[in-house]
Amino acid sequence: MPDRNDVLAAAERISGQVLKTPLLQAQIRGARVWLKAECLQTGGAFKLRGASNRLLKLAPGERRRGVVAFSSGNHAQGVAIAAKRLGVRATIVMPSDAPALKIEATRAEGATIVLYDRRTEDRVAIARSLADEEGATLVPSFDDPDIVAGQGTAGLEIAEQLGREPRQIVVPTGGGGLAAGIALACPAARLICVEPEGWDDMRRSLEQGEIVPVDGGAPPTLCDALQTPRVSPITFGILQERSALGVSVTEDQVRQAVRFAWRELKLVVEPGGAVALAALLSGKLAPEEDTVAVLSGGNIDLDLHSRILAEA
Amino acid sequence: MPDRNDVLAAAERISGQVLKTPLLQAQIRGARVWLKAECLQTGGAFKLRGASNRLLKLAPGERRRGVVAFSSGNHAQGVAIAAKRLGVRATIVMPSDAPALKIEATRAEGATIVLYDRRTEDRVAIARSLADEEGATLVPSFDDPDIVAGQGTAGLEIAEQLGREPRQIVVPTGGGGLAAGIALACPAARLICVEPEGWDDMRRSLEQGEIVPVDGGAPPTLCDALQTPRVSPITFGILQERSALGVSVTEDQVRQAVRFAWRELKLVVEPGGAVALAALLSGKLAPEEDTVAVLSGGNIDLDLHSRILAEA
Repeated sequence: MPDRNDVLAAAERISGQVLKTPLLQAQIRGARVWLKAECLQTGGAFKLRGASNRLLKLAPGERRRGVVAFSSGNHAQGVAIAAKRLGVRATIVMPSDAPALKIEATRAEGATIVLYDRRTEDRVAIARSLADEEGATLVPSFDDPDIVAGQGTAGLEIAEQLGREPRQIVVPTGGGGLAAGIALACPAARLICVEPEGWDDMRRSLEQGEIVPVDGGAPPTLCDALQTPRVSPITFGILQERSALGVSVTEDQVRQAVRFAWRELKLVVEPGGAVALAALLSGKLAPEEDTVAVLSGGNIDLDLHSRILAEA
Repeated sequence: MPDRNDVLAAAERISGQVLKTPLLQAQIRGARVWLKAECLQTGGAFKLRGASNRLLKLAPGERRRGVVAFSSGNHAQGVAIAAKRLGVRATIVMPSDAPALKIEATRAEGATIVLYDRRTEDRVAIARSLADEEGATLVPSFDDPDIVAGQGTAGLEIAEQLGREPRQIVVPTGGGGLAAGIALACPAARLICVEPEGWDDMRRSLEQGEIVPVDGGAPPTLCDALQTPRVSPITFGILQERSALGVSVTEDQVRQAVRFAWRELKLVVEPGGAVALAALLSGKLAPEEDTVAVLSGGNIDLDLHSRILAEA
C-alpha cells in the first residue's frame, strides 16, 4: 500500500511534468468553497500526475518495450502524453463510445488506439493480450500504488495553496485513485467521494465495509470518466481506513454543475469532473466553509457541452 | 497622471475585494506563453479591479449619492459588484444590444440599468444627465487615474507570479485602461495592445503619435468589450510614453482564439477577451518565450459561444 511518503516522492519525481493547477474560489449556497481546477491540467484532467509518476519509474528495458493502458479517455491522454515525453511507445485500449475528443486527443499524442465494444468485449483481456505480445507494461488507471501516489500530488498542492489542510475535500470518484491519493496527501482532511447514481459502488463499498461492484443494471451516465465497474483493494483500503464518506448525484445535478461551471466559473468541466461541484450545488452535501471540491477533468465533446448548456 | 505608486496603493486598497487570478501556461506555435486568466476574476473580467479602487476612494457623501457608469457590460458588472459591496446605489447605462448575459448579471447585482440605442443616442450625455440629477459620481470605464491604477494591479500579480517582469505583455485594448495600468505596474516590459480590425484606434494613435478616434465606418465586431470610439489622454499618454505597440486581429482570428480557449485551455473567453491570444495564435505577433497574454474577460452569451465553437 502506498503512503504519504510515496506521494511526496511522486511530487518530486513529476515536478516539471505537471502544472500546479489553480485553487479557485466560488460562492455556493452562501458558503465560500475552494475548487481545485484539475480541468486546467495538461491533458485536461488530473490523470497526467499518476501516469507521469508510473512511467518515470519504468526501468530502461521496460521503457523500450512500451506501455499499454485501457481508459475511456482521461487516463488514456495522461499515459499518451507521459509516454510521448519519455519516448515510450503507448497502446491505449478505448471503448468505441468514448468521447470523440478524448480519442482524437490521445491519438494526437502519438499513441496507438485499439477500440473495443464496451458491451461485448473485455478491455482487461484485450489490454493484457496486447501487453503480453510485446512484453509491454500494463499501466492501470487506478489499481496501482504509483498511480495513486501520483494523483495524490493534487492533494499536496491543495494544502500548499491553502496554507493548511482543509476540513473536507470532495472528489469525483471512479476507481478512487484520485480520492485515495488525496487522502494520503492530506491526512487530517475528511474525504468525500462523489459518484453518479447507479455507479456509486465506492459509496456502497464504504457503507458495507467491503468492495461491492457496480450493479449489472447500472443506468447510462454522462460521466464516462466515472464508469468504473469495481474499485480496487488499494483505493478502497485507503479510503475505508480514513472513514471516507460516499455521496451520489443525479444526472440532472451533474448537468446543472456543468452549466454553473460555464456561466459562473468560466470553466469547461466534463460531467464526470463536475460531480463534486454537483454535490455541493444541489445541497446533497452541505457546502461548509473550508471545503475543497476537485474539478477533475474538462474533456467533453462539443455537441454534448452545447446540449447541456442550452438546457438552461 | 497615475504612476506606479498609485498601482501599489490600489493593490493594497482592493486586496480582499478581488481575486488573484491564475497565470496559466500554454504552448502556442511552439513557444510556451503565459496567460493571465482575468476571465476567472469575480464578475468574469478584470474590471472589478478598477471599479473597486475608484469606489473605495469615494468620500462618505459621495457614497450616499451613488454612482453612474456606462458600459457594454464588463465595467458595468465591475461597478455593480463593487457598489453592492459598499452599499452604494449604482445606475448603469448600457447599449440595448449588449450581451444579454452581461445585462442580466449587472441587474442581478442590484444595479439600475438604463438601456440606450448605440446608433442614435449618446451614452455620455445620458450618463451625465443621470449623474447630475442625483448628484451621483460618474465612474468612467478607463479615462480616470484610479480606474487605470486599479486595472494595473493585474500587472503587479503577473510580475509576482512569474517572479519577475516578463519581456512582453499582450493586452486586449478598448479604451486602454488595462494596458496602461499594466504598463505602470511593469515598467520594464514591452506592452502590446491588441484590438479588432477597424477598432484599432489605439494602434493608429500610437503610430501617428496623437489620439485618432475610430473611423465612423468601423465594421461590426464580436468584441463588444472593445468597441471604444476613442482612447483617452491618460491611457494613450502612458502607452505612448512606453512606446507600446499596437496590433489588430481579424474576426476570424478572434473566433479561432475563442475555440482554442474552449478546447485546449478549458476556459470560457469572450471575443474581446481573446484578442491577445488571437494575435499569438495567428502569428500576427510572434509568440516568443517570456510572453504574457491577458485573457481579459469571459462574459459571452451562450448562443454566440455555441455558434463560434460549432464552426470548428
